[in-house]
Amino acid sequence: MSLFLHNAMLNGKAVDITIVDGLIVNGECGPDADVIDCTGLAVFPGLMNMHSHAPMTLFRGLGDDQPLDVWLNKYIWPAEQKLNDDLVYQGTLQACREMHASGTTAFNDMYFRLPAMAQAVRDSGIRARLGLNVFGDADNLNEIEKLLTLNSKPLTFSIAPHSIYTVSEKGLRRCADACRDLHLPMHIHMSETQKEVDDCLREHGCRPWEYLDKLGILDQLGENIIAAHCLHLSDSEIRLIGDHHITCVHCPNSNLKLGSGYRFQMLELIDAGANVMLGTDGSASSNNLDMIEVMKTAALLQKGWRMDPSAVPADLILRLATGGHTIAPGQPACLFLVKLNTSDITQSENNTTSNLVYATHGENVKLTIVDGKIVYNNL
Amino acid sequence: MSLFLHNAMLNGKAVDITIVDGLIVNGECGPDADVIDCTGLAVFPGLMNMHSHAPMTLFRGLGDDQPLDVWLNKYIWPAEQKLNDDLVYQGTLQACREMHASGTTAFNDMYFRLPAMAQAVRDSGIRARLGLNVFGDADNLNEIEKLLTLNSKPLTFSIAPHSIYTVSEKGLRRCADACRDLHLPMHIHMSETQKEVDDCLREHGCRPWEYLDKLGILDQLGENIIAAHCLHLSDSEIRLIGDHHITCVHCPNSNLKLGSGYRFQMLELIDAGANVMLGTDGSASSNNLDMIEVMKTAALLQKGWRMDPSAVPADLILRLATGGHTIAPGQPACLFLVKLNTSDITQSENNTTSNLVYATHGENVKLTIVDGKIVYNNL
Repeated sequence: MSLFLHNAMLNGKAVDITIVDGLIVNGECGPDADVIDCTGLAVFPGLMNMHSHAPMTLFRGLGDDQPLDVWLNKYIWPAEQKLNDDLVYQGTLQACREMHASGTTAFNDMYFRLPAMAQAVRDSGIRARLGLNVFGDADNLNEIEKLLTLNSKPLTFSIAPHSIYTVSEKGLRRCADACRDLHLPMHIHMSETQKEVDDCLREHGCRPWEYLDKLGILDQLGENIIAAHCLHLSDSEIRLIGDHHITCVHCPNSNLKLGSGYRFQMLELIDAGANVMLGTDGSASSNNLDMIEVMKTAALLQKGWRMDPSAVPADLILRLATGGHTIAPGQPACLFLVKLNTSDITQSENNTTSNLVYATHGENVKLTIVDGKIVYNNL
Repeated sequence: MSLFLHNAMLNGKAVDITIVDGLIVNGECGPDADVIDCTGLAVFPGLMNMHSHAPMTLFRGLGDDQPLDVWLNKYIWPAEQKLNDDLVYQGTLQACREMHASGTTAFNDMYFRLPAMAQAVRDSGIRARLGLNVFGDADNLNEIEKLLTLNSKPLTFSIAPHSIYTVSEKGLRRCADACRDLHLPMHIHMSETQKEVDDCLREHGCRPWEYLDKLGILDQLGENIIAAHCLHLSDSEIRLIGDHHITCVHCPNSNLKLGSGYRFQMLELIDAGANVMLGTDGSASSNNLDMIEVMKTAALLQKGWRMDPSAVPADLILRLATGGHTIAPGQPACLFLVKLNTSDITQSENNTTSNLVYATHGENVKLTIVDGKIVYNNL
């Protein structure tokens, strides 16, 4: 199966892109290729949504604008009690469709009822890593063995202890050991609120990342830790994170909407050696899964609190949102085409990225391709 | 001319809206009315973009991510030197179309070459107040007399001294006198950056709003002052603004992107008696004219820096974005219809506003009506 994308704008230049068997290749396509006229469209590497709870698409708008404890106790947790496999499947499928429709080709999730989610991932064609949510002493950790029988591209798994305040020390250790033994990443919420930090200081006598370090988990797993939020960090925690090359997933819309804070230390984390990426969080707190919106909020927020318009330029934020992958021969064909607003007369050839990040939204995505397959077509 | 909007969702209820001669009226429409099936669409009062520079649509993406002085000196001001009436007309028309396409039915602007802008406003059908930009000693102030001959609904004018640091004391006094004599509002940039405050303290021995007060302008014009930004305010300035019922226009995307700051004192200003409204600023700094995006950024930013998810709920932000006008008999028919994402099973009847503010973008607007006329139709 091959595709030929004709006349797409890539970094300000018109290019043709040939895709064969899921990969971008050099040269012309064969006579049997599907030819797509991409005139007027810009092409970008697929966006990676690195922190989500896909089924929570079902809860969009539920308890908006409520205090955090009311939101959780009165709205979200009771709603989650009503979920069954069918609803989780439907919510995940809807999430996958929304992600495809806004240029996202891969996502890293954390939830429960993973077999139902896995089915939706397969049916949608998106790339995904699904995290088995674990609480307390991690008593459901044995589910991971069965899940791994489902493990095959484009679907992989992780172990996802919810947080240091909902998983016991024993549970965290068991998760870390399982991650090490099974060669799986650990996906966890970290340093999301000031309260989490304060509670940790009181209960463990140290800050959250120092606590994980004390348990030996940072040395044990290192760069196989994917930590969502990382909003309230001390300088020494930033060094710990950087030294262990941990992936920190910034979810600016969720952090703002839940009142968690705004001062994500993006540049300091990158400088320290962390792998900073971006995510939406679940639709219950971000309200949509539009990574283009996330890029704008993330870049603007950095400029705003740093009071520096040159901080975090568009090409940096795109790199974080795509995991740095590129559109080049040999690369997997995960990409999207978007109609940028080029109505202005001063449109330079070099600002397609800034037009993507600052001027448009997911709704303008016209075509999304995952591993060479068209998963969304609104041409 | 009459319109009948059938089965639109208003505040969670399906309603029919009859529009005759530009007004919403009670009762059924006549047999000659155009009937529009609005099933599946939510209807909201038209959005008011209270601070823009419409022709700067031409400069979208120009000098993005540059330091402020480089952006102005190397990019924006040289580009403005190249403008002529035709370009200003084209840029304004494009802006009006983008505003209509994202639910905005009125805008309050500040720029130059106003006759060309006025023509675009008329051709588009949008409501607009165009501010005559004035610098230095306000030597071009006499242009206003000629402009006022063009003054007729839906087009009105204001006098727009650019700022306290680009207009002299003499110029500011002349503008204020002209506003008083001609019964026109004054539109001005105020307290946009910390530098503006620091410079004012050094040059005038007081803060920007205290300076305007010393010149007698607050007492002279009071609620006829529309001040964009108002980002760096002391408590006593907030009292001055509130006591004079001044309109403060918050432009969060522009403030963030230009690194001006993020801590807009929205609730304090409202409590003090100010009329807080929202704007995009020009597309050179906001990159688009989507007031739905502005609502989300404004609400989220307040929640974020206040660390309070219940601060500034969706219905408050919608009220600020619409100037509080409603869809009710006797009101002008300025409104828009939008396809909200209602894919979730928990969709309550009461969260259409939160779905508008948090989950969607201007691209989902399907129909916009200004004074009973359809100005945008993407049904």
